[in-house]
Amino acid sequence: MHFSVTILGAGSATPMLGRHPSSQLLTYENETFLIDCGEGTQYRLLEQKIRPGRLKAIFISHLHGDHYFGLIGLISSLNLGGRTDDLYLFGPRGLDEILTIQFKYSQTPLHFPIHFTVTDTTISYQLFENQFFTVHTIPLDHRVPCAGFLFREKPHKRKLIKEKLVEDMPYDYLRQLKNGEDVLDEAGNLLFSFEEFTLPAPPPRSYAYCSDTRYDERIAGCVQGVDLLYHEATFQEDLAHQAFERFHSTTREAATVAQTAQAGKLLIGHFSSRYKEVGGFLSDAQSIFPKTEIAEEGKVFMVEASI
Amino acid sequence: MHFSVTILGAGSATPMLGRHPSSQLLTYENETFLIDCGEGTQYRLLEQKIRPGRLKAIFISHLHGDHYFGLIGLISSLNLGGRTDDLYLFGPRGLDEILTIQFKYSQTPLHFPIHFTVTDTTISYQLFENQFFTVHTIPLDHRVPCAGFLFREKPHKRKLIKEKLVEDMPYDYLRQLKNGEDVLDEAGNLLFSFEEFTLPAPPPRSYAYCSDTRYDERIAGCVQGVDLLYHEATFQEDLAHQAFERFHSTTREAATVAQTAQAGKLLIGHFSSRYKEVGGFLSDAQSIFPKTEIAEEGKVFMVEASI
Repeated sequence: MHFSVTILGAGSATPMLGRHPSSQLLTYENETFLIDCGEGTQYRLLEQKIRPGRLKAIFISHLHGDHYFGLIGLISSLNLGGRTDDLYLFGPRGLDEILTIQFKYSQTPLHFPIHFTVTDTTISYQLFENQFFTVHTIPLDHRVPCAGFLFREKPHKRKLIKEKLVEDMPYDYLRQLKNGEDVLDEAGNLLFSFEEFTLPAPPPRSYAYCSDTRYDERIAGCVQGVDLLYHEATFQEDLAHQAFERFHSTTREAATVAQTAQAGKLLIGHFSSRYKEVGGFLSDAQSIFPKTEIAEEGKVFMVEASI
Repeated sequence: MHFSVTILGAGSATPMLGRHPSSQLLTYENETFLIDCGEGTQYRLLEQKIRPGRLKAIFISHLHGDHYFGLIGLISSLNLGGRTDDLYLFGPRGLDEILTIQFKYSQTPLHFPIHFTVTDTTISYQLFENQFFTVHTIPLDHRVPCAGFLFREKPHKRKLIKEKLVEDMPYDYLRQLKNGEDVLDEAGNLLFSFEEFTLPAPPPRSYAYCSDTRYDERIAGCVQGVDLLYHEATFQEDLAHQAFERFHSTTREAATVAQTAQAGKLLIGHFSSRYKEVGGFLSDAQSIFPKTEIAEEGKVFMVEASI
């Protein structure tokens, strides 16, 4: 199953040419999910030639503008484009009010249902579930209510070894084998051993998005063992005091979270516009957590099992 | 005095690569004024290297998103950038509510005053005035309350002919001459004739912005004799019925308004994304009003006296 994250924007609040405000597109097989939606996100989707028709849900971490000002425009365009499919929207209290008032004054009737769920940003809990994965909140320490999101695949089934399968094997047998159960006859004798006919299930993969937040060691607890972790790194160490004052993290703090959580790989972003170059962020993070990459805009990161 | 209009966006509601939603920057001498503010306007300003510090006022024609979704982001960035100067904002009822609710949930204290004035979109009246020009509303015929804006220079004073001036001529004499008054002595005898010492005042220049609207001949009345007219031209003649249904104009209707108003020059924009090329708009308009130009994004149009 395809499981990837496309970086649409990895800048911070102050606008800057070449960096856009936060937004990421998570693709799971044939469906897409948007995480945050800064101003201009719909244009980033156009640039990436991503059709928003497959978009199932949008997750907004918090109500600072660089994380959601593009939402009203994206929804308006989906509506203009003739969408009729349900859209699921998750975000802090107030987001629905902000959208509703704008649709009221533009006298826009929506042609598709938006199912809005207020996130409780104070605890970690399951927010969303489909056939393939769950989404849990990650409480973050920011100036306004803010939650990250942990996307975790559900356990896979064991893989049948096609070459070994007997012709016309009943579907029920196959299901048992894939579930890791031996197939027995009525007397309880072994007919087919799951260990002989299947390979172990691939480990479930996971992706965590943590922006914006002060360094908080509890985050590592929430995302323990995550395969791919995006953690904000607004400042480098020279401005560590500003990071703290403004409820943001430094690069080394982001790397420390990744290290403590034993993450497979770390992506960093949300860079302050004070830094014109991002090389310093990378070397700083890699000094603590070598498997770090820059969340480069336009780049697609595959979510891969790290063990 | 420098008087120009920079096109920041001239697309319509459906997002399209290479065309941005409506926004124009009017520059008068050392100050700037924004007309409409579609999503991403602050990034257009960055691209044009226009610092928003000199921005005095923002005029929003109506509350369809492609004309104002960039406003909250721009104001947020002005605030982040440390602005303390007053900002004047004009737009339909509801705009202040839309902004206020977003600042409430982001817990953003504004560090500069915004003076918001609700526009009455049903009549033409003076909305704004400074030392150099006035702004009047232009009632437009759209699906929601909508007004265009007419920027009209105040009459200039006559120009002193420096070579002819007598040394140490009192300031009061100069003032009288510039006002077109002869300078007399106490007995009422002519000392200096204004016709001899001054040249006629240059004609005051004017710019009108009309978007979005159905064809309405009353618009021509409001902008009679305007030097530069921007009029929306969302559709070409092949989709004239859609223009009417959606409260928009065709290119020929825009040109007819310019012709009836005896405008100096016409700019057309707000092109529907159905048209990938804009050449057809131009030839169509020029068949009725030859002095038409495309409101090309990034282009600066000088407002020049047409007579």
